[in-house]
Amino acid sequence: MPIDFDTIVTLSKNRGFVFPSSEIYGGLRSAYDYGPLGTALLRNVKAQWWRSMVQLRDDIVGIDSAVIQAPQVWEASGHLASFTDPLVECRECHNRFRVDKLDDPDQCPSCGSRDSFTEARNFNLLFRTNMGPVESSDNVVYLRPETAQGIFINFENVRRTARMKLPFGIAQIGKSFRNEITPGQFVFRTREFEQMEMEYFVAPDEGETWFRYWIDERERWYRDLGMNPEHLRLREHDPDELSHYSAGTYDVEYLFPWGWDELEGIANRTDFDLKAHSEHSGKDLRYYDAENDERFFPHVIEPAAGATRTTFAFLIDGYHEEEVRGETRVVLQLDRRLAPIKVAVLPLSKKPELIEVSTRVADELRPRWDVEHDVTQSIGRRYRRQDEIGTPYCVTVDFDTLEDQAVTVRDRDSMEQDRVSLDLLAGYLGERLGSC
Amino acid sequence: MPIDFDTIVTLSKNRGFVFPSSEIYGGLRSAYDYGPLGTALLRNVKAQWWRSMVQLRDDIVGIDSAVIQAPQVWEASGHLASFTDPLVECRECHNRFRVDKLDDPDQCPSCGSRDSFTEARNFNLLFRTNMGPVESSDNVVYLRPETAQGIFINFENVRRTARMKLPFGIAQIGKSFRNEITPGQFVFRTREFEQMEMEYFVAPDEGETWFRYWIDERERWYRDLGMNPEHLRLREHDPDELSHYSAGTYDVEYLFPWGWDELEGIANRTDFDLKAHSEHSGKDLRYYDAENDERFFPHVIEPAAGATRTTFAFLIDGYHEEEVRGETRVVLQLDRRLAPIKVAVLPLSKKPELIEVSTRVADELRPRWDVEHDVTQSIGRRYRRQDEIGTPYCVTVDFDTLEDQAVTVRDRDSMEQDRVSLDLLAGYLGERLGSC
Repeated sequence: MPIDFDTIVTLSKNRGFVFPSSEIYGGLRSAYDYGPLGTALLRNVKAQWWRSMVQLRDDIVGIDSAVIQAPQVWEASGHLASFTDPLVECRECHNRFRVDKLDDPDQCPSCGSRDSFTEARNFNLLFRTNMGPVESSDNVVYLRPETAQGIFINFENVRRTARMKLPFGIAQIGKSFRNEITPGQFVFRTREFEQMEMEYFVAPDEGETWFRYWIDERERWYRDLGMNPEHLRLREHDPDELSHYSAGTYDVEYLFPWGWDELEGIANRTDFDLKAHSEHSGKDLRYYDAENDERFFPHVIEPAAGATRTTFAFLIDGYHEEEVRGETRVVLQLDRRLAPIKVAVLPLSKKPELIEVSTRVADELRPRWDVEHDVTQSIGRRYRRQDEIGTPYCVTVDFDTLEDQAVTVRDRDSMEQDRVSLDLLAGYLGERLGSC
Repeated sequence: MPIDFDTIVTLSKNRGFVFPSSEIYGGLRSAYDYGPLGTALLRNVKAQWWRSMVQLRDDIVGIDSAVIQAPQVWEASGHLASFTDPLVECRECHNRFRVDKLDDPDQCPSCGSRDSFTEARNFNLLFRTNMGPVESSDNVVYLRPETAQGIFINFENVRRTARMKLPFGIAQIGKSFRNEITPGQFVFRTREFEQMEMEYFVAPDEGETWFRYWIDERERWYRDLGMNPEHLRLREHDPDELSHYSAGTYDVEYLFPWGWDELEGIANRTDFDLKAHSEHSGKDLRYYDAENDERFFPHVIEPAAGATRTTFAFLIDGYHEEEVRGETRVVLQLDRRLAPIKVAVLPLSKKPELIEVSTRVADELRPRWDVEHDVTQSIGRRYRRQDEIGTPYCVTVDFDTLEDQAVTVRDRDSMEQDRVSLDLLAGYLGERLGSC
């Protein structure tokens, strides 16, 4: 059973995962800032994706392309012509609404007028701005709505300089911007968001094989990072749902508090993109296969994940409430690789002799792991805080430590405690945490 | 003597560090995409900054705020009113120029007209766009020109949720956008760039002490990562150069091919920002000091570094040409923590029995380090490539390997070679590379 939506939003704000953006100014609708713990969690999600996609593989390299690209990129990709939502305008109050999201197609939800809507018109979701000192039609540019096109336009640059041979992939993590009419559901759908996209280039007759490979591989990634398999599913797009470039798409969906929704799409984009950019740019982006002495447009398999919504899903999935000795314990069961803090070091009290030892212990562990040295409040409250933010291990320095040179290590999930000698502590934690 | 500008630009493009953005469409002036090696180098620079600022310290936490914030943020910060360059327009050709950058203040550099300039007018450098389905003055928003304000507006959120006590800092890495009239010098000054900023909040009477501390600390960071101290200097801003918010600023400057230029500014911003946001938002952003039962606006010391230009400086600084046996060897002497590839695994030839071993060696090292398995070209050319991209260690699998189960490890800088048994290889590299 997925947790209540409000519970996770409240935890996010209170513990410093996510804040409404520009909050002191009343906020900016559906924009969010990541606090210390949310930033750490988001960084860890992105690091795990990069590790699995780039570091651990011989066939994929990374790039980092600009947010503002030449407008021709969006002409070739089709975004300028067809990246639109259908909108109606109320003739009375002049507010606009997505026609496909109206509860009652005859009544304005804002002013209540009936039969006041104009015909639906398509609204383009690209953010538009001007580059240079004058605002003119000559220098209109757009914020990228996806990182993928930055990969396609660099296909030949990357192939040449990294001397890649098919099949190979190019991966990118970065911000994208879509002027959504109806953002919502906390950080799930925002106008500014972060993507983790990879374009995998293959021989045309291998498209279907690699499509299947990446569907499996990407679902496995979420499971491997501890996401509950019962909250994960693959859903194939219906033919009428497919994007204009796609010969097939599967979504990896997560069971959010409001129902199943998309984490990632894996699409078979065929040769649509490289062909389109070749036609629009006049540059030949075909691949030369030296073995068979032939040139062709590779097909592309694209696993495109949302970094911010995936982070949100891990937060939701990790949330558990348990009964412990008649009290409710909230525990965030994040995989150790994703946990924002790996080790909390807690002196039992604020006595200087304890603080001295706990400071030294924290400083010794810090080069290897993200450590929090917490000297506030009662030890019980500190354990509860660390459970709620998903810290795998709490190390407590108590008065016995001054005698036996040992500390108590508490496991987040089992709540079992081990007494560990100080000189064995790094090894003890290393066995359990790795170098994450 | 700094290297020639064109040499480093050519290396960047040929080896895949940096490409002109939207190159297949003729490029977008002064915009760049980072290729596989540039992306890795930029990621490593950012990771080292984050490690030194956040992971290794108890007093600094990170955030990740939105690029598009409420317009009131830029009103309070002063950017809407005064983030401007003085421009003149040529009455003949209608091009605009920065008046302070004109070689001849009477002659248009574009059409050659004399005495054709208008009076200078101030042009605002904020990128402007609209949020929502209609372009109207009601929904104008701006792309952030700095990450710093995202920290100030979250000061209270972070202090409360992370339970920070003065002195403490908030760090952020992210993209910023400035509609520069005269971008240039490759990736040094671009309209879209990445920043690494930290705001350190202190008691008012400790401002000067912490200002000195951060000046030293930041200069040390560049040296610690191997930047040549002779190419680094601190420069104090003249009183007439200081920003409106600053009681003192030092720049960390690097000796670029065109001369000394800024890598980072360390500013004593006093209480300007928190006060301004308190006044504009109506929220009390003063800090409550429980010990002395008093409320005050903390002062702020800001080390603000450019991630992209720092990456560029490390690239320049690492570049060396040496005479080796009558030939010129190009070697990029990057610190091992910054090198894009840590270990190259090179089979001596394409013989399947060597490839089999080298594949296994590469796969075994990959979970710990960024590894390139390179099977192309002659071994000499592959060494030259790895030297040019700064790879600290090359591991060569040769025919003897099949007999003695050992490989040759070549050191980038000394070019010395050690024969290392395969079962000791990870340990050998671990001693030299650490877990970087």
